[in-house]
Amino acid sequence: MSRQTVSNALVHPERLKAPTLEKVQSVIAELGYRPSSAAQSLRSQRTGAVGFELLAIGSANRNEIIYPFTVALSEMAIGHNCHVVTFSAAGAQSPTEGYEDMIRAQVVDAFIIADTHKGDPRPAWLDKAGVPYAAFGRVWGRPDITSWADVDGAAGLRDATNHLFAVGYAQGGYLGWPFGSSIGDERRRGWIEATTASGRSLGPEAQAEQDLDAATDAAYDLIEQVGRGGAIACASDLLAMGVERAARRRGWVPGRDVGMTGIDDSSYAGMLKLTSVSQPVTTIADYLLGLVHKRLEGGPPPESGALFRPALVTRASSDPNT
Amino acid sequence: MSRQTVSNALVHPERLKAPTLEKVQSVIAELGYRPSSAAQSLRSQRTGAVGFELLAIGSANRNEIIYPFTVALSEMAIGHNCHVVTFSAAGAQSPTEGYEDMIRAQVVDAFIIADTHKGDPRPAWLDKAGVPYAAFGRVWGRPDITSWADVDGAAGLRDATNHLFAVGYAQGGYLGWPFGSSIGDERRRGWIEATTASGRSLGPEAQAEQDLDAATDAAYDLIEQVGRGGAIACASDLLAMGVERAARRRGWVPGRDVGMTGIDDSSYAGMLKLTSVSQPVTTIADYLLGLVHKRLEGGPPPESGALFRPALVTRASSDPNT
Repeated sequence: MSRQTVSNALVHPERLKAPTLEKVQSVIAELGYRPSSAAQSLRSQRTGAVGFELLAIGSANRNEIIYPFTVALSEMAIGHNCHVVTFSAAGAQSPTEGYEDMIRAQVVDAFIIADTHKGDPRPAWLDKAGVPYAAFGRVWGRPDITSWADVDGAAGLRDATNHLFAVGYAQGGYLGWPFGSSIGDERRRGWIEATTASGRSLGPEAQAEQDLDAATDAAYDLIEQVGRGGAIACASDLLAMGVERAARRRGWVPGRDVGMTGIDDSSYAGMLKLTSVSQPVTTIADYLLGLVHKRLEGGPPPESGALFRPALVTRASSDPNT
Repeated sequence: MSRQTVSNALVHPERLKAPTLEKVQSVIAELGYRPSSAAQSLRSQRTGAVGFELLAIGSANRNEIIYPFTVALSEMAIGHNCHVVTFSAAGAQSPTEGYEDMIRAQVVDAFIIADTHKGDPRPAWLDKAGVPYAAFGRVWGRPDITSWADVDGAAGLRDATNHLFAVGYAQGGYLGWPFGSSIGDERRRGWIEATTASGRSLGPEAQAEQDLDAATDAAYDLIEQVGRGGAIACASDLLAMGVERAARRRGWVPGRDVGMTGIDDSSYAGMLKLTSVSQPVTTIADYLLGLVHKRLEGGPPPESGALFRPALVTRASSDPNT
């Protein structure tokens, strides 16, 4: 078998006869051959890598999602024939400095961005630089940008609320964040929609910042209002943890005397046996990697962003039988 | 300025006169030029990347450390003129399959490995493959392997125990994991050493698995034994969380009536205001990246592994004045 034959099999398979091609391919497979990433890069002018920025400082709540998402990206990359380069621009002067560095060093072809927020300068900057990207999280305030996937928080709260009614709790209250947060308002909408659709009137509600003492204090009065046999849907696992603590402080057993649900299925939700809503990070990572590769191949952006439904994880805090 | 002059400045700077070289370099700097990673790879036969495997499934406790460590690696990579490629071999048939894939695809030059354990096949496999690596965590049972850095758990518990005595708690008990875990036994040794060095006799101790209900039950009796005004040093944040819950169940205020400390400075330690011991992940990431680069340049392995001292983070659970 000549060197040229092997080279043709790899680069110009159409030049070989079928039996020759098959023979070469079987030997290649046997040897466990995979093309060199550096040689492929040179040929395609691509690095085969997608960059993902890890922020050094984040709330515990955020990190509970970003770590599983990073794992999911790394896992899904194989199927997209690429790899993930994580970067973190500690002490950067601007939110785009890390991206600038990665582009200059030609380490990645595209980016997945997370932690999108109102006024986020990264999408416009990347568009201008002509670098494909896709966002985990809506690009708030920029409806023209459609390269994103997000979790349907309203659907998550609808599922949690419906579950509480299905288990048989008499009343479903709500503990949310102070009004005006996009994510919080959307989750609250899910609680309202599910309650209304069930023909019930809205239960009592309260607000607390994402702080355990504040949540516990707010929950203490709230569980008094829903009463024994009632339940509280919460905008986050931390708020649900506050409800759990308030219940124990009253001597009520979570699940049996008062139900509660959180969101994000964080590590402490598992520890405390809190029912929660798990973000579909694997599906989202796969979708976003597909999206940037379509852009790299010259395809148009999608017609709209994509919302993915989270999955309810039932635990003892909303169902004493589990 | 000719193309050849610029090329010489980049590849053969010795061919140019000093003033010419300086002029070219200043223009290059002004343009923000950085050499292309792919072109450099071809020249050096290096990818400039270090691989780091992210396990899809891990205990919450583990993830609380691995995520900050991943961020630290990504941050420190810049200073080592390399980047970090994360990978995750979901559904792999063997613990080395993901490494094999990364080597075949020539995506990385070296690896940082974590989650080392007794009988870990990766070090021997990587040695045989001739691929440099450095480990976050001792390679238990293989004292001949020295390319590792780890946290000095005994020092962490010594610091926590000394802190409890310095604050003025009358007695210092201990809540640990069942005997026989390498990490747990080492942490317990720190508690014994600090207590003995202070001239006190050992306080009461108990064991619990890494489970919140088990920890809370074990702690309920233990805090009765140390009594009001005593304190409990714990082998983990989760065990300390159990002590906190047991204290509240008795109506005791954490910090004021009974003190407690954890280890790892996890997200819930912050939420619950638990004094804890923070792992020096940035220092360790920097050390390990330096280590693999020395090996890549042909240097010998270090004479011994390196232990880094964690830092005490004081919160209300061990000091009502904070």
